[in-house]
Amino acid sequence: MSTTVHPFDHAVQLTKQSDGLWLGHTSTAYGNMVGPFGGITSAVLLNAIQQHPARIGDPISLTVNFAGPIEDGPFTIEAKPVRTNRSTQHWSLNLVQHNGEVATTGSAVFAIRRDTWESTEITFPMRTPALELARADTSKAPEWTRRYDLRPLKGLMIDGQQPNHELDAVTEFWVQDDPPRPLDFLSLTSMCDSFVPRIFVRRQGRFPAGTISLTTHFHADTHMLLSQGSKHVLGLARASRFGMGYHDQSAEIWSDSQQLLATSHQLVYYKA
Amino acid sequence: MSTTVHPFDHAVQLTKQSDGLWLGHTSTAYGNMVGPFGGITSAVLLNAIQQHPARIGDPISLTVNFAGPIEDGPFTIEAKPVRTNRSTQHWSLNLVQHNGEVATTGSAVFAIRRDTWESTEITFPMRTPALELARADTSKAPEWTRRYDLRPLKGLMIDGQQPNHELDAVTEFWVQDDPPRPLDFLSLTSMCDSFVPRIFVRRQGRFPAGTISLTTHFHADTHMLLSQGSKHVLGLARASRFGMGYHDQSAEIWSDSQQLLATSHQLVYYKA
Repeated sequence: MSTTVHPFDHAVQLTKQSDGLWLGHTSTAYGNMVGPFGGITSAVLLNAIQQHPARIGDPISLTVNFAGPIEDGPFTIEAKPVRTNRSTQHWSLNLVQHNGEVATTGSAVFAIRRDTWESTEITFPMRTPALELARADTSKAPEWTRRYDLRPLKGLMIDGQQPNHELDAVTEFWVQDDPPRPLDFLSLTSMCDSFVPRIFVRRQGRFPAGTISLTTHFHADTHMLLSQGSKHVLGLARASRFGMGYHDQSAEIWSDSQQLLATSHQLVYYKA
Repeated sequence: MSTTVHPFDHAVQLTKQSDGLWLGHTSTAYGNMVGPFGGITSAVLLNAIQQHPARIGDPISLTVNFAGPIEDGPFTIEAKPVRTNRSTQHWSLNLVQHNGEVATTGSAVFAIRRDTWESTEITFPMRTPALELARADTSKAPEWTRRYDLRPLKGLMIDGQQPNHELDAVTEFWVQDDPPRPLDFLSLTSMCDSFVPRIFVRRQGRFPAGTISLTTHFHADTHMLLSQGSKHVLGLARASRFGMGYHDQSAEIWSDSQQLLATSHQLVYYKA
């Protein structure tokens, strides 16, 4: 056991079984109320593609469906390149556990990106810089929250000491791996899911809730990630509709130099 | 051939081959520049689940990945229930053509919905009612656009006669099947993709572009769809980021009684 491996890298570590078949293990460091944090599961699924010898390009889209609980212990990921075109590659993903049951499914699109006309249509939200804000106390929250240095601006709802007077479902924070780790596609994927369910924020309390389906769109390339390094990124999350047991969540992750790195959209089960 | 079948129902028609394996055929009525309109492909994939004897509940989430071109002609859809829980069901989808190559992949989540606390967090955009607006002339646009009665408010970019002076990537219109057809999950799915690529609107021109991955979140239940009937629904679409060959698009579909029926998020290839 090496003491130099970052807990994030430990959690997304995979051992090759055969081409496209990988063995992984849940990590207590990223444990949630029950089973692993969804962000780390998304990241390890993406890693199975990143590690695949047939992979081309970088991720542009990832969808993860949380079909059933993941038990603490080993799991197998099957990553299959369904179709490879000149500049895009489509993948299917499955995470299976010892009982043979599929716990998580997914799909991803990778692409060789090239320079084109570009524009950001939404405005970078100017906020107090991360280092001028206090770090949230996550000592009473699930284990995974302590793998992040969270600097809340509003609606964090992790320490329960931040009443939301605006009666909306918006969270804004700066987030950084703890210990700091240079940003890559895997940690960006995980951070996209580092918001509590919107129902906690909107109703100011804890309710049974869990992500059902999570889609991430990547706007960053490797160069943008490298220039961000291990500094805090700005995360924003909101909802458009709560009803009949499910609500959505849309999130943005921005670099500290005002670049939109990723947007993500999820559907969440809740009971309230 | 029956003259009473609506062209939409004709286009999403499937013949059962075996459990979970369906035979379909592209429909010239929903043809795009090349191959079928993505909305109709998404709808026919969803229909393979709707028709499946093992299906429970209604769709809450659908992701469709356009992996390669669909040729005009027959296709086979494989719809597989990967996991069935008490109130949710996870599906995987593949559309294959004669050459055996996978043209489209997908996943869906169905759920038995129940009453919970509810709230719409975004505001219904009050707009001029559909019937007070002129229908767009789509006579020079791809065939599928003539299967819709489109009443543009801004940024339609189908007839090329609507310069967008605001220099944004926003489209707003009322849309209805032509001929009118009562709204259901299939037509709602298709309408979520009835916007032109955002690059057309933002750059005021036509560029090579195509949807790569499309996720739809359903907020409506059957009751809401029934009460909407065949009236126009309000559609809004925008982008957050164009860059390195891809842009995103987020869309909302509202009933005329101010209910949010669906939101959808897609990633689009473009060359500009």
